Amino acid sequence: MTPGEQMHALVERLYPLCRSITGDGVRDTLKILNEYIPLAVFEVPTGTSAFDWTVPQEWNIRDAYIADTSGKRIVDFRESNLHVVGYSTPVNARMTLDELRPHLHTLPEQPSLVPYRTSYYAPGWGFCLAQDVLDQMPDGEYDVRIDSTLDDGHLTYAEHVVPGQVTDEVIISCHTCHPSLANDNLAGIAVAAYLARSLEKPWYTYRFLFMPGTIGAITWLSRNADRIDKVKHGLVLACAGDSGHLTYKKSRRGNAEIDGVLRHVLRDREHEIVDFSPYGYDERQFCSPGFNLGVGSLSRTPYARYPEYHTSGDNPDFVLPSALDDTLTVCQEALSILDRNRTYVNLNPYGEPQLGKRGLYGSLGGRSDAKDAQLAMLWVLNQSDGEHSLLDIAERSGLPFSSVVAAADALRDAELLKV
Amino acid sequence: MTPGEQMHALVERLYPLCRSITGDGVRDTLKILNEYIPLAVFEVPTGTSAFDWTVPQEWNIRDAYIADTSGKRIVDFRESNLHVVGYSTPVNARMTLDELRPHLHTLPEQPSLVPYRTSYYAPGWGFCLAQDVLDQMPDGEYDVRIDSTLDDGHLTYAEHVVPGQVTDEVIISCHTCHPSLANDNLAGIAVAAYLARSLEKPWYTYRFLFMPGTIGAITWLSRNADRIDKVKHGLVLACAGDSGHLTYKKSRRGNAEIDGVLRHVLRDREHEIVDFSPYGYDERQFCSPGFNLGVGSLSRTPYARYPEYHTSGDNPDFVLPSALDDTLTVCQEALSILDRNRTYVNLNPYGEPQLGKRGLYGSLGGRSDAKDAQLAMLWVLNQSDGEHSLLDIAERSGLPFSSVVAAADALRDAELLKV
Amino acid sequence: MTPGEQMHALVERLYPLCRSITGDGVRDTLKILNEYIPLAVFEVPTGTSAFDWTVPQEWNIRDAYIADTSGKRIVDFRESNLHVVGYSTPVNARMTLDELRPHLHTLPEQPSLVPYRTSYYAPGWGFCLAQDVLDQMPDGEYDVRIDSTLDDGHLTYAEHVVPGQVTDEVIISCHTCHPSLANDNLAGIAVAAYLARSLEKPWYTYRFLFMPGTIGAITWLSRNADRIDKVKHGLVLACAGDSGHLTYKKSRRGNAEIDGVLRHVLRDREHEIVDFSPYGYDERQFCSPGFNLGVGSLSRTPYARYPEYHTSGDNPDFVLPSALDDTLTVCQEALSILDRNRTYVNLNPYGEPQLGKRGLYGSLGGRSDAKDAQLAMLWVLNQSDGEHSLLDIAERSGLPFSSVVAAADALRDAELLKV
Repeated sequence: MTPGEQMHALVERLYPLCRSITGDGVRDTLKILNEYIPLAVFEVPTGTSAFDWTVPQEWNIRDAYIADTSGKRIVDFRESNLHVVGYSTPVNARMTLDELRPHLHTLPEQPSLVPYRTSYYAPGWGFCLAQDVLDQMPDGEYDVRIDSTLDDGHLTYAEHVVPGQVTDEVIISCHTCHPSLANDNLAGIAVAAYLARSLEKPWYTYRFLFMPGTIGAITWLSRNADRIDKVKHGLVLACAGDSGHLTYKKSRRGNAEIDGVLRHVLRDREHEIVDFSPYGYDERQFCSPGFNLGVGSLSRTPYARYPEYHTSGDNPDFVLPSALDDTLTVCQEALSILDRNRTYVNLNPYGEPQLGKRGLYGSLGGRSDAKDAQLAMLWVLNQSDGEHSLLDIAERSGLPFSSVVAAADALRDAELLKV
Repeated sequence: MTPGEQMHALVERLYPLCRSITGDGVRDTLKILNEYIPLAVFEVPTGTSAFDWTVPQEWNIRDAYIADTSGKRIVDFRESNLHVVGYSTPVNARMTLDELRPHLHTLPEQPSLVPYRTSYYAPGWGFCLAQDVLDQMPDGEYDVRIDSTLDDGHLTYAEHVVPGQVTDEVIISCHTCHPSLANDNLAGIAVAAYLARSLEKPWYTYRFLFMPGTIGAITWLSRNADRIDKVKHGLVLACAGDSGHLTYKKSRRGNAEIDGVLRHVLRDREHEIVDFSPYGYDERQFCSPGFNLGVGSLSRTPYARYPEYHTSGDNPDFVLPSALDDTLTVCQEALSILDRNRTYVNLNPYGEPQLGKRGLYGSLGGRSDAKDAQLAMLWVLNQSDGEHSLLDIAERSGLPFSSVVAAADALRDAELLKV
Repeated sequence: MTPGEQMHALVERLYPLCRSITGDGVRDTLKILNEYIPLAVFEVPTGTSAFDWTVPQEWNIRDAYIADTSGKRIVDFRESNLHVVGYSTPVNARMTLDELRPHLHTLPEQPSLVPYRTSYYAPGWGFCLAQDVLDQMPDGEYDVRIDSTLDDGHLTYAEHVVPGQVTDEVIISCHTCHPSLANDNLAGIAVAAYLARSLEKPWYTYRFLFMPGTIGAITWLSRNADRIDKVKHGLVLACAGDSGHLTYKKSRRGNAEIDGVLRHVLRDREHEIVDFSPYGYDERQFCSPGFNLGVGSLSRTPYARYPEYHTSGDNPDFVLPSALDDTLTVCQEALSILDRNRTYVNLNPYGEPQLGKRGLYGSLGGRSDAKDAQLAMLWVLNQSDGEHSLLDIAERSGLPFSSVVAAADALRDAELLKV
């Protein structure tokens, strides 16, 4: 299997679980993920304060349905967990269709699809179903059952850390709170897992975060506030597997190093770069003004821009192995650049150093076809005043980033540069 | 009558008066204006120092003409005050056409129009007339009479103040020194007066200034130098009623708040925005390097760009009620934005605050059609770091300014923002 | 003779000399140049340290050839000094063509041209010849002779200083190390010499530098390090006489005053402006990060961009009198602007000063055809806050630089401006 196919298989395996911002569906998801990358799982008790928020009660659900009086299930949680509004309180009642109607959510414009709805912070209950199904439901009475619990418990999230040569961190974050939705965000989870597996002895410490959206990110930030200044860069992964081209959403800063890295990596592909906006995924929290981290977000088609978004149409068929593969490749290229990007200071800044006596320069003068390697050394020496990173130098010179890194390595080995 | 027609009637009423940088024509103008908005009138004695300048002697004129020896007036002040060069010294003489000629000003390229000329600071006298009239004047002798006085007196200007909730000020300035010229600047005076009448309980204190050009503005600045730091914004109104589209000339700073406000208001209309230049009207003085105030200038067709400029062609027919109305509307929109524009600080900057528990956020999650009101709150929270005004946020987000203001009001009421 | 023809004659006169980074060819070149402009010649001993470099041994050559066994010279130094690789060590041997081959340099793509090659810092020897000639050389034995010396001696460079009214300096630098190559850089040397002759009582002190490339510039910088902060601007002249249009390469700063001056001068001509890059001529050294001087480089077709570059094709025929003339004119215009460019402070910054009472302003008001001279005064007064130079003001206002200078002179004479 290609990596894309392996990631797709992980998406399919995770798809049936009923995730939410808390509950056993998240735990089961992390248990499976732990087979791919070792995870540290954190359980945060209900009632814990997190800045302006409080960890809510834990929600679990065993079964739910709307059945006709003959006992035939018209809407059945066992077929798809999207049928129940997330965080629905328990129900066990017989009621008329008219009584039921305020609790039913459909998509009249997409009558065959089941929408995804939640009600985390306002107690209530509801069902989601296809408009086509609703249209077939005769008036009369129905047995309505939601076998859920809402009790003090925990919010569950997980970290996977790849230690680096420095303690400065890069965070890769993806939300784990969506139930049977494949692109949003099992695709992101799968890419993150395979990205974590591919990192070998990196420079930075990479912290992969698998957390419920909003409350999870805010809880994590709250519990890690005293060391958040270690987080130098980050990427939120979401909607990572559909057939659209890649879209990078810049950090709030707009000129963070990660923004330059993604622009560099994407420039030779079909892609889109969009400015930061304060909605979407957990970049909202990482880029809130009090943190203002250098965290961007990588998606294929962005949230709410594809018709299958937050519907039963976002199933594993909507996610392509080739697209997962492409997203993974771009992430790997981006981290590979980020990880090698340095800002040096030229230790011999008065005129050029004599590269020839160090064996770094061709001995025959007068030729007009100076090689990339030599040009790269001159560029690195000239621009290394503590203000320009190697990526800046690559972009300014038009030379490949790898040539610039190689030049810097040679110059550093010759003690002509320091960080 | 529409507001445009009312403003036009005011222009017609003021048109016949012989204004100059001093004199009774200015006083009569302010007396009429006082019927529309209460004015505080200031009289500054001849000889008063104002920075590098000195208030000149006061000029008044009762009559003036060039008559043939039969007593027939060929050029007659009673027909138009443009016929006399402003600040002409008294004359009572018989002279030949050849002797008279150095004192005659015409527009050979526009032979039917009378030019407007002044000689404030170099004693002398002269007449302005149509080239066509001059061409008909036979050689021979003429009786030449200018019944003017140039004596110690006063320079007269007026203020109308609309008190605000804060003492920070916005100045709206227009020059009152031009005699029978309608667009330049009775149109500006009329728009200013109606703009003043339309302000209700504003945030800023608005100070409307009716002053002679250059010496008036310099005198006002000189007398108010110790509180000029209260002036946060300003607009010079001139040439406000011709049929051309609106032209905004930026402040010397080029990025003052008033510049952004006008750009925002004008963007959906045919308009032109031009960079600051050190000629035109009293923005020259407000934007001199020692003050460098955030004062721009709003005109329709800018000075010296229309053939009727500074000629008898600039009469009330050249000013359109609809154009006056349009200028007034844009001024009102601009002040309405300026007055509500604030720069806030998010009091809960670490992650998003929980809007739901404050009733500020929809309870049902998962929908992709988030409403403007909610987006606006997220934008305001995210950008309110003391660096971005509500107008900045409106432009960045693409949301209407009024939505952004409403969001900020709601957030401030919820104690999530402070100024 | 036109100046262009005179400069061309100088190029022809210098052409036959065998220059290198050291040696009598350089001395003879400077001796001839001294007939045009008085030079101070500096001799720096072999072994002298210059930052990371050491002045090398001095190289001189009397004769060199490859002869067939009949004594017929196939490759002859006396025909062109390009035939010997610069800094070749002495040779006196009979060897087969196969043994000789590793020491032969040709241009297979340009078979009739002789390349220019050097080996300054790696001991060795070699010949350069046309591929066409090599193709005609039968196998067999050849007498190979290089009658050169490589001994402790000196590196030679020269300065010509035009004293200014201030001790702040402008350096004009050109490399003197290339043997029989005309455009690169006898053209630059000739333009520099005639430029020096044309300077009359300048504001700045102008220092013309005639030095071998790289080691010469580094040696000069090393010996003048303690007063390098006097160098405010500079220009490297190279490839100054070919038929291409002018190319200006910006300083490393990219917004140095010299960059603005050249952009201004070139804007009405066919030209190209390129960003700084750390190869080319001695701008590499002046713009190394430790100095980062405001030094740009003016060429016609830049180095390595024309097929004759560093070949026997770069001979006096390749250099046009008209092109030398054009380069000289642009240099003169540039220095004329640089030399008059000042940044003033308005001494009467509160409102406009009353120009009329100083005789600087027309007495008749109301005219719409204000003259350049008056506009220029208003621009200079408004912009003179210590932040904008006269060139900035000329560009911002669209007025000719000379009008702006004249206005500033008048205002300074009226004590309205100070530097």
